Amino acid sequence: MTSRSLTDRLGGLAFGGDYNPEQWDEPVWKEDDELMRRAGVNLVTVGVFSWALLEPEEGRYDFAWLDAHLERLHAAGVRVDLATPTASPPPWFTLAHPDALTVRPDGTRLTHGSRDTYCLTAPAYRKAARDIAGALARRYGDHPAVALWHVHNEYATLCYCDHTAAAFRVWLRERHGSLDALNEAWGTAFWSQRYGSWEQVLPPRATNWHGNPGRHLDFRRFWSDVVVAAYREQRDAIRAHSDRPVTTNLMLPGYQNLNLWDLARELDVVSVDQYPGAPGLDAAADVAFHADRARSLGGGRPWLLMEQGTSTVYDGDRVLAKDPGDVLRHTLGHIARGSEGALFFQWRQSKAGSETWHSAMVPHAGPDSRIFREVTETGEAVARLAELAGSTVRAEVAVLHDPDAWWALGVDGLPSAELDYHGSLARAHRVLWDAGVTADFAHPAHALSRYRLVVAPALFLLSDAGAAGLRDYVAGGGTLLVQHASGYVDDRLHARLGGYPAAPLREALGVRVEEYRPLRRAERVALSDGSHGTAWSESLRAEGAEAVAAYTHGMLAGRPAVTRHGFGAGHAWYVSTRLDDAGYGALFARLLREAGAGPELPGLPAHVEAVTRHAPDGRRWRFLVNHRAEPVPLPKPGHDLLTGTTVSVLPAGGAAVLRLP
Amino acid sequence: MTSRSLTDRLGGLAFGGDYNPEQWDEPVWKEDDELMRRAGVNLVTVGVFSWALLEPEEGRYDFAWLDAHLERLHAAGVRVDLATPTASPPPWFTLAHPDALTVRPDGTRLTHGSRDTYCLTAPAYRKAARDIAGALARRYGDHPAVALWHVHNEYATLCYCDHTAAAFRVWLRERHGSLDALNEAWGTAFWSQRYGSWEQVLPPRATNWHGNPGRHLDFRRFWSDVVVAAYREQRDAIRAHSDRPVTTNLMLPGYQNLNLWDLARELDVVSVDQYPGAPGLDAAADVAFHADRARSLGGGRPWLLMEQGTSTVYDGDRVLAKDPGDVLRHTLGHIARGSEGALFFQWRQSKAGSETWHSAMVPHAGPDSRIFREVTETGEAVARLAELAGSTVRAEVAVLHDPDAWWALGVDGLPSAELDYHGSLARAHRVLWDAGVTADFAHPAHALSRYRLVVAPALFLLSDAGAAGLRDYVAGGGTLLVQHASGYVDDRLHARLGGYPAAPLREALGVRVEEYRPLRRAERVALSDGSHGTAWSESLRAEGAEAVAAYTHGMLAGRPAVTRHGFGAGHAWYVSTRLDDAGYGALFARLLREAGAGPELPGLPAHVEAVTRHAPDGRRWRFLVNHRAEPVPLPKPGHDLLTGTTVSVLPAGGAAVLRLP
Amino acid sequence: MTSRSLTDRLGGLAFGGDYNPEQWDEPVWKEDDELMRRAGVNLVTVGVFSWALLEPEEGRYDFAWLDAHLERLHAAGVRVDLATPTASPPPWFTLAHPDALTVRPDGTRLTHGSRDTYCLTAPAYRKAARDIAGALARRYGDHPAVALWHVHNEYATLCYCDHTAAAFRVWLRERHGSLDALNEAWGTAFWSQRYGSWEQVLPPRATNWHGNPGRHLDFRRFWSDVVVAAYREQRDAIRAHSDRPVTTNLMLPGYQNLNLWDLARELDVVSVDQYPGAPGLDAAADVAFHADRARSLGGGRPWLLMEQGTSTVYDGDRVLAKDPGDVLRHTLGHIARGSEGALFFQWRQSKAGSETWHSAMVPHAGPDSRIFREVTETGEAVARLAELAGSTVRAEVAVLHDPDAWWALGVDGLPSAELDYHGSLARAHRVLWDAGVTADFAHPAHALSRYRLVVAPALFLLSDAGAAGLRDYVAGGGTLLVQHASGYVDDRLHARLGGYPAAPLREALGVRVEEYRPLRRAERVALSDGSHGTAWSESLRAEGAEAVAAYTHGMLAGRPAVTRHGFGAGHAWYVSTRLDDAGYGALFARLLREAGAGPELPGLPAHVEAVTRHAPDGRRWRFLVNHRAEPVPLPKPGHDLLTGTTVSVLPAGGAAVLRLP
Repeated sequence: MTSRSLTDRLGGLAFGGDYNPEQWDEPVWKEDDELMRRAGVNLVTVGVFSWALLEPEEGRYDFAWLDAHLERLHAAGVRVDLATPTASPPPWFTLAHPDALTVRPDGTRLTHGSRDTYCLTAPAYRKAARDIAGALARRYGDHPAVALWHVHNEYATLCYCDHTAAAFRVWLRERHGSLDALNEAWGTAFWSQRYGSWEQVLPPRATNWHGNPGRHLDFRRFWSDVVVAAYREQRDAIRAHSDRPVTTNLMLPGYQNLNLWDLARELDVVSVDQYPGAPGLDAAADVAFHADRARSLGGGRPWLLMEQGTSTVYDGDRVLAKDPGDVLRHTLGHIARGSEGALFFQWRQSKAGSETWHSAMVPHAGPDSRIFREVTETGEAVARLAELAGSTVRAEVAVLHDPDAWWALGVDGLPSAELDYHGSLARAHRVLWDAGVTADFAHPAHALSRYRLVVAPALFLLSDAGAAGLRDYVAGGGTLLVQHASGYVDDRLHARLGGYPAAPLREALGVRVEEYRPLRRAERVALSDGSHGTAWSESLRAEGAEAVAAYTHGMLAGRPAVTRHGFGAGHAWYVSTRLDDAGYGALFARLLREAGAGPELPGLPAHVEAVTRHAPDGRRWRFLVNHRAEPVPLPKPGHDLLTGTTVSVLPAGGAAVLRLP
Repeated sequence: MTSRSLTDRLGGLAFGGDYNPEQWDEPVWKEDDELMRRAGVNLVTVGVFSWALLEPEEGRYDFAWLDAHLERLHAAGVRVDLATPTASPPPWFTLAHPDALTVRPDGTRLTHGSRDTYCLTAPAYRKAARDIAGALARRYGDHPAVALWHVHNEYATLCYCDHTAAAFRVWLRERHGSLDALNEAWGTAFWSQRYGSWEQVLPPRATNWHGNPGRHLDFRRFWSDVVVAAYREQRDAIRAHSDRPVTTNLMLPGYQNLNLWDLARELDVVSVDQYPGAPGLDAAADVAFHADRARSLGGGRPWLLMEQGTSTVYDGDRVLAKDPGDVLRHTLGHIARGSEGALFFQWRQSKAGSETWHSAMVPHAGPDSRIFREVTETGEAVARLAELAGSTVRAEVAVLHDPDAWWALGVDGLPSAELDYHGSLARAHRVLWDAGVTADFAHPAHALSRYRLVVAPALFLLSDAGAAGLRDYVAGGGTLLVQHASGYVDDRLHARLGGYPAAPLREALGVRVEEYRPLRRAERVALSDGSHGTAWSESLRAEGAEAVAAYTHGMLAGRPAVTRHGFGAGHAWYVSTRLDDAGYGALFARLLREAGAGPELPGLPAHVEAVTRHAPDGRRWRFLVNHRAEPVPLPKPGHDLLTGTTVSVLPAGGAAVLRLP
Repeated sequence: MTSRSLTDRLGGLAFGGDYNPEQWDEPVWKEDDELMRRAGVNLVTVGVFSWALLEPEEGRYDFAWLDAHLERLHAAGVRVDLATPTASPPPWFTLAHPDALTVRPDGTRLTHGSRDTYCLTAPAYRKAARDIAGALARRYGDHPAVALWHVHNEYATLCYCDHTAAAFRVWLRERHGSLDALNEAWGTAFWSQRYGSWEQVLPPRATNWHGNPGRHLDFRRFWSDVVVAAYREQRDAIRAHSDRPVTTNLMLPGYQNLNLWDLARELDVVSVDQYPGAPGLDAAADVAFHADRARSLGGGRPWLLMEQGTSTVYDGDRVLAKDPGDVLRHTLGHIARGSEGALFFQWRQSKAGSETWHSAMVPHAGPDSRIFREVTETGEAVARLAELAGSTVRAEVAVLHDPDAWWALGVDGLPSAELDYHGSLARAHRVLWDAGVTADFAHPAHALSRYRLVVAPALFLLSDAGAAGLRDYVAGGGTLLVQHASGYVDDRLHARLGGYPAAPLREALGVRVEEYRPLRRAERVALSDGSHGTAWSESLRAEGAEAVAAYTHGMLAGRPAVTRHGFGAGHAWYVSTRLDDAGYGALFARLLREAGAGPELPGLPAHVEAVTRHAPDGRRWRFLVNHRAEPVPLPKPGHDLLTGTTVSVLPAGGAAVLRLP
């Protein structure tokens, strides 16, 4: 579909950010041209929130202002990622289509005043979105400035209105075939929930006590399919008029109700937004987590960091600043793991509106600022990396991610609120990152045999096929770690009977979980190897597995806590509690050793990140980022693209990109 | 009304649980027959959540499947507690009767998808409930398998709809007689709330700031009466066709908005559900608390434990497991205190639906499991106790419980959020349980003279009659302990003037509380006897009472904190703060000693539970449960029904039921 | 407008409280007469919550009962502060005018049952309020008992209904002139919020994510104007029939959505209600905070304490008692700072209704009580202070208060939830109070040159004129302290570009804030002077200022934290973090010293309050309140009005009012 890659069009890696010139005026635009040149910006995202300007009243378009900006940018050598503005309908939409606004589970209908006040299932919204996307594509499909299309923004809003109810029923009919099958799947025999006709089925609106878990899960799946369909509609409207690649920016990990595997499949290039939740080393680990996810979602293809902040760390009720140097370190962290550049939200910090305090490339303080200086240095660095466009990253370890498992842990009535899906994934990834190991994410149904080690955290839901796949992976020689509370239910949320996890996986693990025993908040249980568990414990019986560590107290005293089982040509491990950091780290050290996997560059101290990009023609580049507070000598010197010199020591907080021989 | 008792029909004590065969299929039913036999099940509750199956569309009944199950169960020697399914209307009900769904105070109307989505005051719901109850009774009223009727399930849901408003007005007219009386009762002269006509009166819907407390209290009373009336309607519909006893399962302590004394009066046999909120010793104390409440609600008659979990402990945002051995210990705890058996929710752990993770007699892991083995052992134990059917329990101590006092502590604008009604009752009961003393609960209006000691915790509301009754109890020779913040308001929530508590009680106590002085969260005040108080303090003047302990610091320094007053032939104590555990225990030790009350079996160490059941013919059985971690020798050996042997030592965690000579 | 002052009419300072005789009956009224005489009550507020009695059905008035009470009070020598009852519409209002009830942002419409269930923009409510106010004024405008009019009560409730939407649009048109100007002001170019017609503009109802901050701010301003207009309507209706002064009772600091400067301007006498949030010394500081605010709102004129509690301290989920002696100490604290007396809510503690547990002058316990005894002593004390009626208080230090800055810190999307407006003001006032310094509050636009020291805490929003005014103040010789996160936005919430704070202020301060760096919750940063900062830090560059203290760690190490800049004839200080208590105190000690400001009576130990009232004719009285636990000798003896003796020592907790020579 797309004739040239994004980096071809840019002549190198992308650098830039969201650009909202409609918030400013002529003198600022002139300064923008100059500052973008200084910063090395070659790609800006335009139009994300411009619906009210582009279509000031329903059906009347005004493109003149956008024509002018595209002209100006093009003249300045800046390419455009042109957005459809459908994430934020204008105020006129609220008045014209009240039936197309978001409705909460309790029936509250939202109105404009923020963003995302629409319902994706409302015909009026879908038509309005298709129309504006089509109109933009007709006008700008061949515009020389346009290098990429950006559909919508961070699809996220759920809705429980009557349009949704109708669409949900259509989806359910297709998925389940019959009402009997739906009743069976949702377990409606319990609590007298059996449906006698399709029109009785409603979205999970406000109800008493626990809602039906099957309905919850199917509603999440349905909504994800709605999002994918809405994206496809816009993409297809664009493709009718343009040969440039199309994407939408994904949010990880839990912001969007999405099966990201499904949506990523539809994208010409996967793009993601990344904002850490803690500063310092945690932020760097979060960069790696997001980047490895983004690459994995695209099946290993190059991807694009669509948004990061120059100084934005979301920490609950406040937004912290990033550390000096993070702009470059985080940018390199993303590119190291496969991004074809780095964009920011946004170019210029808003002087008004809802995100006045979101950091930007040009802060309120203006170009005479630490932040803009770091942006400029980073832009120079990115420009020096043009040669590695199109190269990719390889991993020997995979962490399993299945959105069904996430949603399955979002139902009412679970045994513990501490079964945290995304936190478990991030923790598994982090222990690998701490060990210097590059990891992919994979779906349980993927071909896993290329990995030496596969980790399954929080895989509460596991389909029959997934369970069989994991067994086969082990039998074929793989090393598998399954963590507590995994494989408890199938893809209809039906509990696995006879002992958890699902039978084929039980066979590979050589254990049978007879009882789950959630722990109290802050309770710790001791294991025989000196480590401790929190959150969860299980009464399990070894059925062939050896006990690597056992519980030491209480009713579980002497019972296995961590097990290892040779099965076929491989080994399957099970850990029945949430290990403390030291215990978890030690477990992974052993797993990696036994699996024959390890860091990219052995011998580096912890938190000196090393990742390699591989070109199809065999060229390789090694990214090195020193997150430590002291200089680190390299195992051997190399030619650094960033400085154009040979480097043998990484300064504290410093980085290098070595062209490998 | 009922010709034969439940235990007559069962030939012994009841053992079993909720049974929902509609969630399973033929092979499982066959296994159920076998496993029930192994477990000694003789009674199962069927149909609690079967409305959607029994009446798949409005007015069309389908009993065939239920016929078959009753047939099968009867053939297997298992009797049935047949439920009316009215706690969970089917999805068709939502569409057919939107006016009969639950409405929250803010006007949100709930829909199906969970359970309990109905309004008890809606005519359409009441008719639907009467109809299905009547239809069941007509068909199964004489069925040989049916041993008990189970109306509804855990009546709980409040509603604020227009039907409720209309019914509330009718109830208020009847209670108050005139609008003037209502205005006076609710203190509507304040904040300009005077009603000029009945139609101005609304349920306590969403309003600004504090709602009127009188309206709150009357709404709670009204709703309790609605529940009782709704129960009576179904009961009467059943009685028209059946001579088997009728019950509904009560939830303690604060889940249901109910005057449990009122509802219990209508039950042929009191039945309760019991789920502890903490594991270990706390769970055992909770068993005793619930069991003593259940017995007391029935006026001392034998009652029935309708639901417990084999491994379910509700702990905030998680559900903990019970300890090994608890299935038997808890079961004996209930039977010791008067239950005619022990049922569980549920027989088989659901494989799907909203309570998939609620424990059961047959867990997901199947019969090859610790839990099913414990169930089987417990079933055997219960079978050995058949001879004590119909026997009862005696207590010398009573803890006062008045739902009006509970509701009075639920109004807006109280001086402290730490006036915790149910927590105070549980604490008073617990200090007695720790001391080995069996306690009743009693209403302040009950005849109290048969008790040596009466304890009044958190009796914030106390009617004129109640206050007089307590005075008379003391005058007649009783020992009374009144705790802080008691007797502050009358049954219209009008404050007692001239000093708290209500005058006749003040006379008996020989104190006048001049000021309440709530303490800050976590604040502790020291008393002269070395104990400490939290939550609350009072400035009181002794008017005849002696100060047993005084405050030592601050403005209350030197003022009495705990007092004792000889009055008539008895003694009245007052404690003006929430004593710490040691101080509270010491206070009760002295109270018990002075009142001449004590443990059933003196000489046992703490937490070896001893309770005696008495047959009308004089036979007696002593239940002994050792909650300690070490063996405990008995004062003298005895014949244990559980083992059929003579025992002289209780093993750690062990139990015995001695047939007393 | 008003011919005689309140104190003229009373013949001295006011003493009394809210009096709601409609809650009681004849015998109590008789006792009231006697007890008021004993307590020295000379002014009571009547009718605040009497709408339902005064107008039992719409348009029909019943004044007979009120006639009788006014007659009785007058006969007893008690004057009346007559209230309009419009804060609490009667139940009939709910039924008659459902469109005039409060609507929450999510659309929930409130009903009666509490108070304040009305919408100030609803024509039906406004008419009803005008009508009842006019009717009262017609009947009682010349009544000899009436000494003061009390409009409404604690105006507070916001509403989001359609009436509000319409009124908001009218207000916006007037403020902004054109839709283009509104779009520019609110930054609607961002997130596609541009309005194409006025009818698209809505109040800030429920929406997704962050709401538009400009809309939030303008809605707060609009609502404040609505309140002022509603007050003026009632005041004017009263003035048409009465020459007595008119007021409404203000609540400080954040309870009311009000620009208190605006409303205070309309009041014949400023009156405020004061309830502390913590007991002990904190309560005394809170008295001073409220009293200084009240005086400042009236431009230094005498004001009136309309409500305090004899024993009411709001502490989150409980209401604590005050300490013995506080009734007098707090009363003197208010009068010392300019109040013309002290009133309480309420005379007699309610026996029923929503405020049954609010303290009163006559508690539930009756006159034989500590509280009533203290009330009586306090009444005697107030009576002895008649000679100082009309005198005023002088301050050399001002703390800036701008409601726009408060509202600006209430928008969504700020960098930190720890930018606490009212807490920052209270803290600045408290550090002065601890140092014995009397402070005014002032608006940034006020003439400030009369103050030696001006403190600007939390002045996040600062208009162009305000910034220029502060610069001019310093240039003219003043000492200014600006605290972190001040001057970040202009009066449209547009960020100051090029560095914070606003340019003219930056010039005076000699610093430029380049970056804000919020701190994590509980994070502390060390400064070079040994103090620590929390909540916030900033990367600032000295542009002429000297660094008084610098950060010592992290990226800010060595950068200035506290600066001082000589500018023109004055000095401007900047502190870029929230200093700890010791550091904050030391900073103020230096500021006061350099500014030549100090305590009223040097040489007193901390927490012996000393404030002076000045009569126009030069007479002076010094209030002394000893908040310490030990006696304090006075620097020199003086004649004490309270005792009529010469005193040379203040006992622990004691007070004196010295007539200065």
